[in-house]
This record gives sequence, structure tokens and C-alpha cells, in this order.
Amino acid sequence: MASKIIIKDATVITMQENNEVFETGDILIEDQCIRSVGTRVTDSGVDTTVIPGSGKVVIPGLINIHNHAAMSLFRSYADDYPLMTWLEKKIFPAEARLTAEDTYWGASLAIMEMIRGGTTTYVDMYFFMDQTAQACLESGMRAVLSQVFIGDNAVEGFNSLQDSKGFADRWQDAANGRITSILGPHAPYTCSPAFLKKVLSETESSNIPIHIHLSESRQEVEQSLAAHSKTPVALMQEIGLFKRDVLAAHCVHVTDDDIEILVANRVGIAHNPGSNLKLGNGIAPLKKMIDKEALVGLGTDGAASNNNLDMFEEVRLAGLLQKGLNEDPTSVTAGEALALGTRGGAQALKKDNIGVLKEGAKADLAVINFRQPHLQPHNNAVANIVYSAGASDVETVIIDGKVLYDRGSFLTLDEERIYFEANRRSKRLRI
Amino acid sequence: MASKIIIKDATVITMQENNEVFETGDILIEDQCIRSVGTRVTDSGVDTTVIPGSGKVVIPGLINIHNHAAMSLFRSYADDYPLMTWLEKKIFPAEARLTAEDTYWGASLAIMEMIRGGTTTYVDMYFFMDQTAQACLESGMRAVLSQVFIGDNAVEGFNSLQDSKGFADRWQDAANGRITSILGPHAPYTCSPAFLKKVLSETESSNIPIHIHLSESRQEVEQSLAAHSKTPVALMQEIGLFKRDVLAAHCVHVTDDDIEILVANRVGIAHNPGSNLKLGNGIAPLKKMIDKEALVGLGTDGAASNNNLDMFEEVRLAGLLQKGLNEDPTSVTAGEALALGTRGGAQALKKDNIGVLKEGAKADLAVINFRQPHLQPHNNAVANIVYSAGASDVETVIIDGKVLYDRGSFLTLDEERIYFEANRRSKRLRI
Repeated sequence: MASKIIIKDATVITMQENNEVFETGDILIEDQCIRSVGTRVTDSGVDTTVIPGSGKVVIPGLINIHNHAAMSLFRSYADDYPLMTWLEKKIFPAEARLTAEDTYWGASLAIMEMIRGGTTTYVDMYFFMDQTAQACLESGMRAVLSQVFIGDNAVEGFNSLQDSKGFADRWQDAANGRITSILGPHAPYTCSPAFLKKVLSETESSNIPIHIHLSESRQEVEQSLAAHSKTPVALMQEIGLFKRDVLAAHCVHVTDDDIEILVANRVGIAHNPGSNLKLGNGIAPLKKMIDKEALVGLGTDGAASNNNLDMFEEVRLAGLLQKGLNEDPTSVTAGEALALGTRGGAQALKKDNIGVLKEGAKADLAVINFRQPHLQPHNNAVANIVYSAGASDVETVIIDGKVLYDRGSFLTLDEERIYFEANRRSKRLRI
Repeated sequence: MASKIIIKDATVITMQENNEVFETGDILIEDQCIRSVGTRVTDSGVDTTVIPGSGKVVIPGLINIHNHAAMSLFRSYADDYPLMTWLEKKIFPAEARLTAEDTYWGASLAIMEMIRGGTTTYVDMYFFMDQTAQACLESGMRAVLSQVFIGDNAVEGFNSLQDSKGFADRWQDAANGRITSILGPHAPYTCSPAFLKKVLSETESSNIPIHIHLSESRQEVEQSLAAHSKTPVALMQEIGLFKRDVLAAHCVHVTDDDIEILVANRVGIAHNPGSNLKLGNGIAPLKKMIDKEALVGLGTDGAASNNNLDMFEEVRLAGLLQKGLNEDPTSVTAGEALALGTRGGAQALKKDNIGVLKEGAKADLAVINFRQPHLQPHNNAVANIVYSAGASDVETVIIDGKVLYDRGSFLTLDEERIYFEANRRSKRLRI
């Protein structure tokens, strides 16, 4: 017999293309999927969980398409440093001491934070990814995972292409499709064109998608222009990377021509406004990307450079920064900003069954408690969520039809154990 | 007999000039003031409230130096409009219908949100300020209040200089100094130089400080240059405004010379990074102001242009925006950002007994619960607060030695009544 969940009498923001909002509606979930949205559901039975939705707003779960989850161990460990000092004196030495077990606990902390904040799918790129995959498996998180690798100049401790291809093969479709994999060559500045061509040819038969950092810093673009007389984006097009499905993280320093290339090749773009500010990389031309109908979603990046994994903040920042940058309050509306954090992320991942509340979609959603001073009066639910809400306002989170978080309780994660392990491991890793 | 509060075994961020942080310390409060910080307190008695501080972090209450509290009624009522459409078609018509009683409830909602988010002092400039003052009186909020007025071209419904001076006289020192007043001429573009000179001469004897909007938009500066061949800041200097203590809101479009004028005259600057982005005004040159030792604090502006009153967000944005704008991750450190939201605000208000935890200071503070996934591991409390915390993480708030909020309960405000009144009044005011 199917297990059912009914959310009753909630305001439902569907994030369907027609932007339909039900001021009072029900949602019916059966097993992993949504069966109806907005219409009244009277069905109930012994196997049915009913969640009262009055005073609550339901949105599709947020989709965080760029993260290094286990870096939560390095949250607030090294801030306000120049980029190279931060990497070479703080992050790299700490990562050199990182063990597989550390990664498991760091990823668990990040997953706990993301679930608590209404994020229901995330993309990871890091080391020891079997442990992160295990944490996703146990927690119930939906994830797209890549094991990072670099090219010919690989240093000790970095995974090889073969290792990372092995990881991708092992996790290409786990937990009934809840966990999938993607290949993770780090960046054009750590993977030469020749090496990336080798990556493409050696994975041609599996046609696996690729996640890569791209045009994050001004320096990266300048170095590419000096070495190859091309921007990183143009260089990636030249070597044929975009013949594969690609999810490119950052794309801060991109030209109008670069944006044309990304759009023409349907490259998914992970925009990380918080991390881009904090590391001093700047502000990506998001408005131009949206106007060209680029496939843009949002990411937090790792907690070492953000420092939280609150996707509400990224949604808000994505909109506000464009208004400020373009000196235009109409630039990126509330609805457009929320779309970036939901169906936009799904589109960047080429998935049509998440990021939206509709019949047949995966039952991934967040219930937000509006009985709080910063979310009253209830004039406009979308604007309240985009301009005023935060991760802490989420009351219930459902992923793949299962309640994973409900009013302070994590149903699949041991909160106290994770804090204990994260603190003692973080202490050991710090220098 | 004095009433006492002891906070035991907390991490205490004093925000004193030496940036002292006690990893484990006690705070003793007697009546309205802090008696000791950091050292162990053993004293207790029947009249003593003990707050366990283990796993908690205590900071001075945040200081929001620019707000229009009653505009909370217009939260998420009109977003993403061009500035003049927003003002003329949405905000002004709604304000024309605003009553004194609406203002009381709107201000109460804002005060409730601010207290819940650890803000313990705020500055207001709006209409019907006697009602706002009454809400401050009843709620226990610390406030500096101004009744806004405009010049010779005053429209119906606007207060006169005399009205506003009357308000300032009535509330210059209420509730044992917890509520004070300031004069509120709206802005140089609504108050002519001749009118502002009249304001100065007619209030000369009382020497009352002045709160004014200044150089908020590019257009304002262009108009001033066209009409007066001077920037708004230079014009204000010329007419002698800065001989008075002045708190200037925004200062987004200021030249290096303007900054010199503001610094030389010890003008308090209310930096409102969220509102400045949302209304498309841009990003103020905060880093330059800090380098020149300008008296800068932070404000949220009203909820119609922010849309929440979360000072943690303003602290974070203030820092992150400068890092991004200057493409320099070392620009405005976590400690500098938190100083803006605490002792910086106090300095801009020329007050030395708030914004810092020290013996003799007013007992205004916020206790933050760090047992949450986004605030673990506990590597660096200041960085966690600046880069990861939010209003919802505040667990207990004390103002003037009184607990006003504690773990979900407002001790001086009727939460449900305020929601009810805010919703029905907001609905009537909307068009």
C-alpha cells in the first residue's frame, strides 16, 4: 500500500512556468511523487500523514548546484585572507590532512544544514566522494556528485581521472535515482586542454556530464588570454567540452561572446553570488544571462567561502546585486530570483522532475512558517520569501516523498553526534 | 533591592576597541547596566535571573540607525518597480491613507521583528511619531525618533517644522533616557537651502541633532549639481548644517571630497546596503569611509525597501559588497563589519554607553544559539556571526536590563494581536 502525505490549506508557490500560486491549496504526495497540487484533497486513511498548512507557504525544495559539502569543517576557519594566502596557507594544508572519515562527517553537517534550510537537491565536487555519497544515501538527500580531479600536473592526494570515473560509474544511479554522478575535472587552469581532451575521449562511451569551475576570477581569464589567446569559455568550446552536458560553476568574468557560447551550447551555469563576493571575485552579469535565456541556477559554494549554505540568501543576493549593479530596481524580479533557486537549478542540471510543484514531479519541497514578524503582513508570498525569508524559517522538509526535517527534529540524522564529530575533526584539521 | 541577571559560561564578544572575546565568561547585569563582563560571577540570590550561556554567544545588541518602522505595513506590497512608479503610484498613495493608529501597529510589528533579531537600539524617521514613541515606550525598545518634515513646498499631510520640533521636545528624554528624539528634515531635495537655514535658526537654542537623507541616488546628486553647482554634501556644509550633530542616511553617491567633509564634521553616516541595492541606488564607498575613520553605522531602511529588518544581513552585506566591489577579499574584515552594526552605530549617534559590552554600559545585548548546523563547528565566533548567522538565531534579547524576548516568547508585545492588526490595516492601505 502506498504511503501518502497531504499538506492541507497552505499557500502553494508552484514555480511552474506560468508562475501559478494557490493562496489556499492542498498537495497530495504518494510514495516519491507529487500526485496533485492546489486542488482540495479529501482522501485520507491510516497510512496518510496530514500536515496542516494554514499560515504556511510551500515552495519546491531549493536546488544548490555548486557546493563542496565537506568543507563545512572549514567554516569560519580562515576568512578575509588574500585568495592565494587563503588557499596555500590555510585550505590546502588542512585538506592535505583530511581523511575519508572527516569527509563523511563534514558532508553530514552540510547535508543537515541544507535539509534544515529547505534545500532538497545539491551538487557536490570534492575528495573522498564515496563517503559523501554514503552520507547522502543515509540522510535521504537528493544529490549529483562528482569526485574532483586535476590534470597532468596532479599533486599527491589528488584523484586521477580513472579514480573519478570509477566513482561516477559506481554512483551513476543510486537510491532509485536520488543520487547520480557527474565527472569533476577541477578547472581549465588546473586541467590543460590536452588533458581535458583525454578526459572527453576516455569517457566518450558513457557520455557522462561534466562539472567544472569556469571563469571564476579575473586572474584566471587573464592567464587564459595570455596562454591561449582565448577566454576560458572560448577555450572550452574549442576543445569540444560543450559537446557534452556541462555544468559550469561561477562564470563571473564572462564576455558577451562567452555568454553567447554558453547559451548556444546549453551549458548549465552555477551562479554563486555570495562566494563570488566573499572571495573578491566580483559580480557575474546575471541579468545578461537571464535575458539571453541561459540555463542559470544558484549555488552556495563551500562553507569555507560563504559561510552558510542558506539558499534563500543566494536567491535574495542574486536579485539584489543585479538591481544595485545595474542601478535598476526592476532588474531581476522576485519571481525571477526564486526561479533561479528552484526550476532554474533543475534546468541547469537538465532535470524536469524537480524544482517545481506539479503532478508527477518528485516530492521535494519545503514548508515555510509565515507566523513570524519578518514575514508579516502576508502581502505577497513570493516577495516575502525572496526578500525577507531565511533557512531558519523552514519548518518541514520533504525529499523523495519522505519527511526528513520537521519543526526542529532531523528524522534521518543524529544532530548531536554530527556537531561532536565536526568540532573534534575541525580542530584537528586546523593549523 | 536591585534586580540582577547573570549570563553564565557564554562566549562573549565584547566589541570593545581591543576586540576582546571571552571564550567562556559571565556577564552581570544590575538594573539597567552591565556591572561586569568576562569574569566569573558567583553572586546569586532570590532576585537574580540566571541565563545558562553554554553553547551560546553574546554580542552587544545591534544598532539600526536608519528605519521607517511603520512601513512594515508595506512589506512585500510593492517590489521591483522603477523608483518613481514605486513612490508615486504605490507608496505615497498608501501613506496618504495611513492613520495614527496604523502607525502604532506598523511600528509595533517592526519593533517586534527588531527585538526578535537582536536589535536593541533603532533610529526612526516617519509620520505620526507620537504613536511610534508610544510603541517604543510599551515594548521596551531603545530608540532615537524623528518626525519627518519637508520644506516650503510641503504637501498636505506632511508635518511642519513646528509640529516636528514639538515632537522632538516632547520625547527628548523619555523612559529614563531610553527614548530620545532628533529633528527630521527629509532631504536636501525636499528641503531648500533657505528652509534648512530656517530650521537651523529656529532650533538653535535647543541644539537638537538632525537626521536627514543625503546623497541616496545618482539623480539626487545630478540635480543638486545642476541647481547649486555643489554636491548635496557640499551644499549642506555651505548652509552650516554640519555645525549641528547630524546623522546622514545613505551617502551612496559621495565623492572623495564629500567623504572628507563628512569626516571633518564628524557627521554620523547610516549605511543601508540592502535598501541601496534593492532600490537600484548602488553601493556606497564604505571601505573608503572606514579608511578615513568616518563615523559609519548600519541601517535597514524601512521594510518596504529591504524587506526585512535583519541587522545580521546588513552586517554581512556591508562586508561582502566591499570585497566584491573592490575585488579584494581582505576589504572590510568580519570584525570591522560587526563593529559597524554595534559600536559604529553608537559612534554615529554620539553615544558611548551602547554598542559595546563593558562595565557601566547599558545592558543591551543579544544571546545567540550556536547549536545549529550553520553555526558549527565553532571555529571563530565573530566570523560565524558575520558570515553565517541571522536574526532567527537570536535566543534571548535584553534591553535596558530587561529581558524582552526569550526562546520564542515576546515578554512585552502581543504577537498574535500585532499580526492581526498589521494584516487588516495593510490590506486597507493597499491599492
